[in-house]
Amino acid sequence: MNNGKGLSAVRGFRFSAVAAGIRYENRLDLSLIAADSDCVAAGAFTTNKICAAPVKLSRQRINNTIRGIVINSTNANACTGEEGLRNAEIITQSVAEALGISPSSVLAASTGIIGVQLPREKIISAIPQLVSSLSHENGHLVARAIMTTDTVPKETSKRFHTSRGEFTIAGIAKGAGMIAPNMATLLAFLLTDAPVAKKDLDEIFYRNVDKTFNAITIDGDMSTNDTAIILSPAFEQTLPQNDLANFEEALHAVLSELSEKIIKDAEGATKLARIRVIGARTGEDAQKIARAVANSLLVKTALFGMDPNWGRIACAAGYSGAEIDEKHLSIYFENLCVLRNGVPQNVPRDDIQKAMSGPEVLILIDVGLGKGEFQFLTSDISYEYVKINAEYST
Amino acid sequence: MNNGKGLSAVRGFRFSAVAAGIRYENRLDLSLIAADSDCVAAGAFTTNKICAAPVKLSRQRINNTIRGIVINSTNANACTGEEGLRNAEIITQSVAEALGISPSSVLAASTGIIGVQLPREKIISAIPQLVSSLSHENGHLVARAIMTTDTVPKETSKRFHTSRGEFTIAGIAKGAGMIAPNMATLLAFLLTDAPVAKKDLDEIFYRNVDKTFNAITIDGDMSTNDTAIILSPAFEQTLPQNDLANFEEALHAVLSELSEKIIKDAEGATKLARIRVIGARTGEDAQKIARAVANSLLVKTALFGMDPNWGRIACAAGYSGAEIDEKHLSIYFENLCVLRNGVPQNVPRDDIQKAMSGPEVLILIDVGLGKGEFQFLTSDISYEYVKINAEYST
Repeated sequence: MNNGKGLSAVRGFRFSAVAAGIRYENRLDLSLIAADSDCVAAGAFTTNKICAAPVKLSRQRINNTIRGIVINSTNANACTGEEGLRNAEIITQSVAEALGISPSSVLAASTGIIGVQLPREKIISAIPQLVSSLSHENGHLVARAIMTTDTVPKETSKRFHTSRGEFTIAGIAKGAGMIAPNMATLLAFLLTDAPVAKKDLDEIFYRNVDKTFNAITIDGDMSTNDTAIILSPAFEQTLPQNDLANFEEALHAVLSELSEKIIKDAEGATKLARIRVIGARTGEDAQKIARAVANSLLVKTALFGMDPNWGRIACAAGYSGAEIDEKHLSIYFENLCVLRNGVPQNVPRDDIQKAMSGPEVLILIDVGLGKGEFQFLTSDISYEYVKINAEYST
Repeated sequence: MNNGKGLSAVRGFRFSAVAAGIRYENRLDLSLIAADSDCVAAGAFTTNKICAAPVKLSRQRINNTIRGIVINSTNANACTGEEGLRNAEIITQSVAEALGISPSSVLAASTGIIGVQLPREKIISAIPQLVSSLSHENGHLVARAIMTTDTVPKETSKRFHTSRGEFTIAGIAKGAGMIAPNMATLLAFLLTDAPVAKKDLDEIFYRNVDKTFNAITIDGDMSTNDTAIILSPAFEQTLPQNDLANFEEALHAVLSELSEKIIKDAEGATKLARIRVIGARTGEDAQKIARAVANSLLVKTALFGMDPNWGRIACAAGYSGAEIDEKHLSIYFENLCVLRNGVPQNVPRDDIQKAMSGPEVLILIDVGLGKGEFQFLTSDISYEYVKINAEYST
């Protein structure tokens, strides 16, 4: 495993997390990532029209010189109006003062319950401890402190070669709970010690987030709080174009691995399914079909029950909005073809159930109309999911 | 109750249902509605690109003179290719022969498992019994025979006055199981003894289906099999324009009542929620918001848990695609305002839970931007829902 060190695998950053008592006592809920030197940042944020105060703030600052990110869990600071925005500003200002840096260089992210004001004073009083406990070794703590209904912290790192030597990229994420059709707050923080120019960082980051984090939630980023940020200490001697492919490969590997970890830790999930679409008329069509199937509640419950009800898959493909012709549509569970060019294949039920019995299932949909491809990851939906979400704010 | 008689309340039609052994033994699964005289029909069908054979057939014939509708449950005859279409044709032809009418005057509808060919011979051999047992009194039998995971048959009727005297409109429906984001086959059959001209029938039927059946399922009609058909013996002396308002009122009442019955019988549901949106910039925006909230898995699980997590409602409104400004958004549970113009109200949690404790809950969303209004009905999602859908085709 080359992901043993998480964020701490990257040179030039320090980390800390404390229990500020934001919503619960004795729970790590406030964390800080501090860069030793000026960084450039790229950020992918929710497109929800109702977005959280820290999203508004970080979106404004993402093109600044960045030195830190302050993150709280258990309270989303969303639907909290002007007061919420003021709270986010005051908290980042307080962090900046303690670190002796400019307030405009501190980003913020939150996750948790919506519509409740942050206990600002509790957070402010925890900041001295947060700053004094910063250490390069504390990467794991931040990965734990950002969790909500996640059962395990999610972190990974990769090394990559360049003409300037070896660099590292590492990331942590908090899961989307279930990879929900609706609200699945995803927080992810990526750090690299490679100096990647802002323009390159933006382009490469967005492109790879689209193929990873945006391929595990319906309609991309719908929560009020979704935030993925990457930092790079890139103010001099940025990597030449020749080295960017290696950086991108490592970044993609880190984002993919975090995406899989999120799905595997989905609320109440027992299974990871890869919804792989090929043969769509366009790549966009492939994405629409993969998303519709991945988000189908009936497909997800069938996965849980290992019910070879592939009609639900065809149905979701049919309403995805993509071009579909039943006569050209084929569906496979693993290597078993259950529908070939619109004709149901008489595969014994037991064989299909066997193919679906593992912890990971491949559902391959061949649209038969072109060369468009896309893959979504999804999870099943279980009793446990309903339980978790019926009681979430309790 | 004026719905005691269901379809049998309408003059001029006969009904029957038999157990043809289509998927299970000794279960009513094949039924027939036969008109004593020529009828005009209006039909609303699924817009799914993968649609069932009977949908293709009925869509082709809906503007013909209609004399009958043959319906089977337990098998959707969807994703069954050319053979499925041929089966639907042969079955309607066999019904037409037994009734001594034209094959082109017989419509078809199916619901059940996708991707399995109909046992055509079993159905053909059951048709003589189906036709010989036709009786005006058998309306209830058809309401029962079209059920799948429904726990109760759904039927109702209304009388209405016109310048030509009293008429009746009646309808039956099979539930959408859960009012699912994905696939929720709805079959509904409406009959009236009032002679409504084809043009009027089309216009009034579509308009009212949009406000009722299409306001209980996400994105309208997404199943492969959704079908709602109305018949009227309207080949002479059709109702004058003056009488159409009364007809429309009665039709709306019947469609509304069936919609509520469907939601109340949703798979595993414990609660009916009315998602009422007012103050949207346009009616279309109101519909988008109502639909997004009604289909939010997180809202539905919160309803089950009576969890006053209204942030999930704001979040769904935010990603609905409608114009939303947090500063003007207000949310109410029943008469309790929990968010006013973007500011969370400190309503005690117990009060909200009390407001949510009944079998019916009103969630009112005031967008504060205009005069657009729309209401969706939805149900909660429970453990039972997952169980039913994990095991459906088993």
